[in-house]
Amino acid sequence: MNLHGFDETVYLPLGFSWSATKAGIKASGRSDVALAEAPMGASAAAMFTRNRVAAAPVEVGRAHLRKSKGRVRAVLVNAGNANCATGPSGITVAEQSCAALGAALEAAPQFIVPSSTGIIGVPLPVEKLTAAIPAVVEARADDVEALKSFAAAIMTTDTRMKLASTEFAAGKKMVRIAGVCKGSGMIHPNMATMLVYIFTDLDAEPKELQSVLKAAVDTSFNAISVDGDTSTNDTVLLLASGASKVKLAGSGVAKKFAEALRGLCFSLAEQIVRDGEGAQHLVRLKLSGAKSLDEARTIARSIANSPLVKTAWAGCDPNWGRILSSIGKSGVAVDPARINIFFGPQQVCQKGVAHPFDKKQAYEYLQQPEYEIKIELGRGKSSLEFLSCDLTAEYVHINADYST
Amino acid sequence: MNLHGFDETVYLPLGFSWSATKAGIKASGRSDVALAEAPMGASAAAMFTRNRVAAAPVEVGRAHLRKSKGRVRAVLVNAGNANCATGPSGITVAEQSCAALGAALEAAPQFIVPSSTGIIGVPLPVEKLTAAIPAVVEARADDVEALKSFAAAIMTTDTRMKLASTEFAAGKKMVRIAGVCKGSGMIHPNMATMLVYIFTDLDAEPKELQSVLKAAVDTSFNAISVDGDTSTNDTVLLLASGASKVKLAGSGVAKKFAEALRGLCFSLAEQIVRDGEGAQHLVRLKLSGAKSLDEARTIARSIANSPLVKTAWAGCDPNWGRILSSIGKSGVAVDPARINIFFGPQQVCQKGVAHPFDKKQAYEYLQQPEYEIKIELGRGKSSLEFLSCDLTAEYVHINADYST
Repeated sequence: MNLHGFDETVYLPLGFSWSATKAGIKASGRSDVALAEAPMGASAAAMFTRNRVAAAPVEVGRAHLRKSKGRVRAVLVNAGNANCATGPSGITVAEQSCAALGAALEAAPQFIVPSSTGIIGVPLPVEKLTAAIPAVVEARADDVEALKSFAAAIMTTDTRMKLASTEFAAGKKMVRIAGVCKGSGMIHPNMATMLVYIFTDLDAEPKELQSVLKAAVDTSFNAISVDGDTSTNDTVLLLASGASKVKLAGSGVAKKFAEALRGLCFSLAEQIVRDGEGAQHLVRLKLSGAKSLDEARTIARSIANSPLVKTAWAGCDPNWGRILSSIGKSGVAVDPARINIFFGPQQVCQKGVAHPFDKKQAYEYLQQPEYEIKIELGRGKSSLEFLSCDLTAEYVHINADYST
Repeated sequence: MNLHGFDETVYLPLGFSWSATKAGIKASGRSDVALAEAPMGASAAAMFTRNRVAAAPVEVGRAHLRKSKGRVRAVLVNAGNANCATGPSGITVAEQSCAALGAALEAAPQFIVPSSTGIIGVPLPVEKLTAAIPAVVEARADDVEALKSFAAAIMTTDTRMKLASTEFAAGKKMVRIAGVCKGSGMIHPNMATMLVYIFTDLDAEPKELQSVLKAAVDTSFNAISVDGDTSTNDTVLLLASGASKVKLAGSGVAKKFAEALRGLCFSLAEQIVRDGEGAQHLVRLKLSGAKSLDEARTIARSIANSPLVKTAWAGCDPNWGRILSSIGKSGVAVDPARINIFFGPQQVCQKGVAHPFDKKQAYEYLQQPEYEIKIELGRGKSSLEFLSCDLTAEYVHINADYST
């Protein structure tokens, strides 16, 4: 199992090819159009942003998946322009790009899922995108280099490519899963998106995939926060080619797949937080004793989105009062007299009241690039590991010192 | 009418006296214990923090108001220690201070409301507080200097005293209202509180006062945000001495009082946002076309608490995409195609899509220390003016570069 990038073995699922090219949409001139294709088609599951301001490709992708009953031939991604807040013409443009790729692959447009990331409110230069289609179709390959070119082209403000891959055995056969993503918080001016593409050669129906994906996302991508903002373009897409000849419905396969997928999603989510703009600390919030997963997530978000908590983390300040207060304002009917808080090995709050601790040791613990804060809520049996990062002056500089 | 501080005429309500002294609770050695007394008693209305982690004085204040059926003889405030996350002994300590002041004034403890602001999780040195009671009782006076001493003693990280006062005529009699407050966001390490005390010589029952106060607070203190954090000690207390001999139930009085109180609360709320730590811009969000006041407030908070929006404000960046996106993630079922956004005189977004505007002019507009962003939601008839400020690197420095 290698969940950590391109430097180690990549477990490449069968039944896919990838490619990328330069269409001139990114101002930097870097590769900005990416293609993933399942030549024999794939079953798909998807989760999109819940933001009411959803970008055109999100609307079109949803409609295509409905029309195709969850079957996908290819995904076409562009970076540099989000095609969001672009009105009806934004929808037309997304449709045009799917039609153009469909024609090149001899597939109906509803089997194409479009994705965009980049600036909001500026028309997508569709002629640049369609002009790049012959080149990106031509470049397709089913090797690691091709997947790497896909991972590089979807980046905007990311400082590194993000990949996780794994495999598991089902009888004598192997199933492979590889996922790539982009995102480092809604951090850069107008750059506002987490895009995740997961490929597997498992054989599954779209409906079967959807429930496994939802469960995996709930405790991975939905359990991270860089700055609390939900993008207009967020997308997680899972494609299953069936090329492993292992059926999800087979004995013991569903459980193994769910575990592998969850681990992979968590690794990708962690890579996103690590790449959070200006972030100096990766903070693992380990909540236990919640009444439900939803409740744990609500409390974790209230902590992780508090500017006071996040600035305390930036200053390595063992300020547990801010954490307690942000739990109290979460809207969950917590009883402070049941709450315990630990900074790593040291308890700092017991039953809602200060617990004596070594401040110097706590300060040193919080200086580490990565650490753990444990919170016991004393309400129930649900627990959640939630990943977040600190809010630094660097984050403010990056997001303030820019003008559209 | 003078809503703006101590430099102009202060409309001092009859039937109250104020004082302050130094108890040595503030590390700075400044005055830190404040007393407001209604020698003949006053009717009270109060609103407290909704944070589940409520400080001991909030719990005790609530219990006293219940027990006294909304009658108050005096308010005892200390700054420098919030008496929060202090467990059962925190409650005991708050009760002790009320008992000590009650004994000095020959009043039962339930007629005393305690308030605290300052560090969380550290036991309140009650002996310092009770030792200061003779001095603070001795110092009482019913003049502007006395009110000023009260306003100064309740400050923690505030950079200036906050006062608003006004009067209105009811027949041949005058009714006066004066309010003082402290707060500049939950900005300073562990300093976490908005405290508001409003005094009037109107004659009213506690129940009558409560509904007027709630309406005024809903569109003033509940319509501001510095950093989105809700303190554990937030308190708004309204006391009515009756010394004007004007009854709230009198013809036309309720309306005049409600308007005057609302204007006064809005002025105090504005003073708090202006004093927001690190803030360089006061932003007036003028929302219209919401279905209800609650809905408008939910959307305004989603905008005002978005780190991306707030950092764009810090950079004078006319980035309307971030505002649109933060409206979309508010949870309200908005239709982006009905949303219009204006930076002052210029429209920047029409029906959810970019509207051509002069970027240089917009940048200059957003450089002003105070400006207006108008948002039309196209859903209903409710509107709200919500006050917020930008998130600057200075805010991060102040809150990060401190260690408990």
